[in-house]
Amino acid sequence: MNCFVIGNGGWGTALAMTLAGNGHRVTIWGPFEEEIETIRSAGENSVYLPGVDLPSEIKWTSDPSASAGTDLVVMVTPSRFYRSTLETFVPYLSENTLIVSATKGLDEKTHQRMSEVAEEVLHREIAVLSGPSHAEEVARGVPTAVTVAGSDFQTLEKIQAAFMGPAFRVYTSDDLIGVELGGTLKNVIAVAAGILDGIGLGDNSKAALMTRGLAEIARLGAALGAKPETFSGLSGIGDLIVTCASRHSRNRSVGERLGRGESLQEIMNGMKQVAEGIWNAKAARDLAEKHHIDVPITEEVCQIVENGKDPKQALHDLMNRDPKAE
Amino acid sequence: MNCFVIGNGGWGTALAMTLAGNGHRVTIWGPFEEEIETIRSAGENSVYLPGVDLPSEIKWTSDPSASAGTDLVVMVTPSRFYRSTLETFVPYLSENTLIVSATKGLDEKTHQRMSEVAEEVLHREIAVLSGPSHAEEVARGVPTAVTVAGSDFQTLEKIQAAFMGPAFRVYTSDDLIGVELGGTLKNVIAVAAGILDGIGLGDNSKAALMTRGLAEIARLGAALGAKPETFSGLSGIGDLIVTCASRHSRNRSVGERLGRGESLQEIMNGMKQVAEGIWNAKAARDLAEKHHIDVPITEEVCQIVENGKDPKQALHDLMNRDPKAE
Repeated sequence: MNCFVIGNGGWGTALAMTLAGNGHRVTIWGPFEEEIETIRSAGENSVYLPGVDLPSEIKWTSDPSASAGTDLVVMVTPSRFYRSTLETFVPYLSENTLIVSATKGLDEKTHQRMSEVAEEVLHREIAVLSGPSHAEEVARGVPTAVTVAGSDFQTLEKIQAAFMGPAFRVYTSDDLIGVELGGTLKNVIAVAAGILDGIGLGDNSKAALMTRGLAEIARLGAALGAKPETFSGLSGIGDLIVTCASRHSRNRSVGERLGRGESLQEIMNGMKQVAEGIWNAKAARDLAEKHHIDVPITEEVCQIVENGKDPKQALHDLMNRDPKAE
Repeated sequence: MNCFVIGNGGWGTALAMTLAGNGHRVTIWGPFEEEIETIRSAGENSVYLPGVDLPSEIKWTSDPSASAGTDLVVMVTPSRFYRSTLETFVPYLSENTLIVSATKGLDEKTHQRMSEVAEEVLHREIAVLSGPSHAEEVARGVPTAVTVAGSDFQTLEKIQAAFMGPAFRVYTSDDLIGVELGGTLKNVIAVAAGILDGIGLGDNSKAALMTRGLAEIARLGAALGAKPETFSGLSGIGDLIVTCASRHSRNRSVGERLGRGESLQEIMNGMKQVAEGIWNAKAARDLAEKHHIDVPITEEVCQIVENGKDPKQALHDLMNRDPKAE
């Protein structure tokens, strides 16, 4: 199979290596020729995946026309450049090209999922790939399992077969909305989990927060058209577990600094871009309000971020809500 | 409320402290007067909850008749002494006594849940309490959330009100079977997670294992009469998260040693009693066979434990099963 990965970040590179490992011909595209040339000559993606030797079979390009005639396209650019990047590729994609989206996040302005953005650009449905998957681990061949979702089962089986290998297990799902939302909404709960870490609480608190966070995103997800049970899968709780456990997750670590009492302004001063979970929290709160869904954890994250509410007071308020059924 | 806790281990002590903190009169019973006298005079349960100052209001006894006339009884003895202990108390429990079981595990011989054992002894249904709750953390007032389950909502509300406090949040559930099974079956997955730790794998692998383990115990639980969604709650994934993250979990650490290549015999030589997850794995496998449920992770744990299968081979076999839908 001829595969084309749009996006030269860590996750794009790891997915390209997975496809190349299965014997497919793979090209990775990135927007900046200078950056691409550096990777090409070094045999290493030193910015986004340092220390990993890249297979020489993978080709690197900054030319969108190189995607013409490929069988499988993987969209994995950052969410904010998703629409504009995909528009560049429209002339080169045929209606037979399998397209799978591996970008997490909502469109900042419209709150659309990435596959919704793609559908507007391409006038057809695409598939999504999501799950608990640090790029470095996938690149190093650490066993990983993910989900590919979409409505056409034959398409999913082709994508599953392309990616599946001895250390990369792929499950299919017909719940595209749920799989895509899981990877986005978990970032809000990861910020909250980081806040607990920053306050210095224990394992009981964090497990309870993750579980009640899962219930919250499943409620919201269902209102947005997802199947609630999807959030108990790899793209939901699986990804939430990996993100909340990680020392490297930007969302969790921003939360940790908030929990220690730093303001969002202080934290942002030292960062190139704000963690997705921060503005996804606002998007989730807006969507929940629109659909009359109770999202107490998301609400407290927004209060801390927007109004500088004391994280300990937020925790106290969460613990002292009225008694509920689970 | 007059409360009586049957079982002087760490969890029994922590639950007694929670009740006492809410202003209830609490007595803890243990089977050995000498041990009870030591705790009474030291003001510390130095064997099971070392370093925690016990409130002087809590009374300690080894006399079952002291339970006569109490309003709420908490059963929290080890599973192997559950039936015989409860039988001792039958003469002192009235039909108005609220009874809640906080013991995890299945009866070793009959594979019955603890509330089923209690129902045989008492000829009435009781409630269960379960969730992600290290006893030390509850005793120290670290925020914790648990679930109380049973079929009579008014009973559950009384138990919820008795335990609920600023650092101990209690949810109700009508799925007694699911809540009780979650706390038991998660130990099998915790052994498997420990095996991954022992092999030295990454976060992706562990998150995938926990997620697929959750799917597996939800399938088995449903066949045993539980609601599958209960396993996505505090007593299911919540407890699984806490156990798999813990350096102190006996189940996880037995798994870690198996993953490093030690045999069960070597591991058991140094332990007073085998980790519950080991024989719960066999019980789960037997129950799954009986109900024709696919439990691949449990099956591999049994293969490693019973037949000395190489853990890396077991992992390889799990990763290379046929492609599936999630």
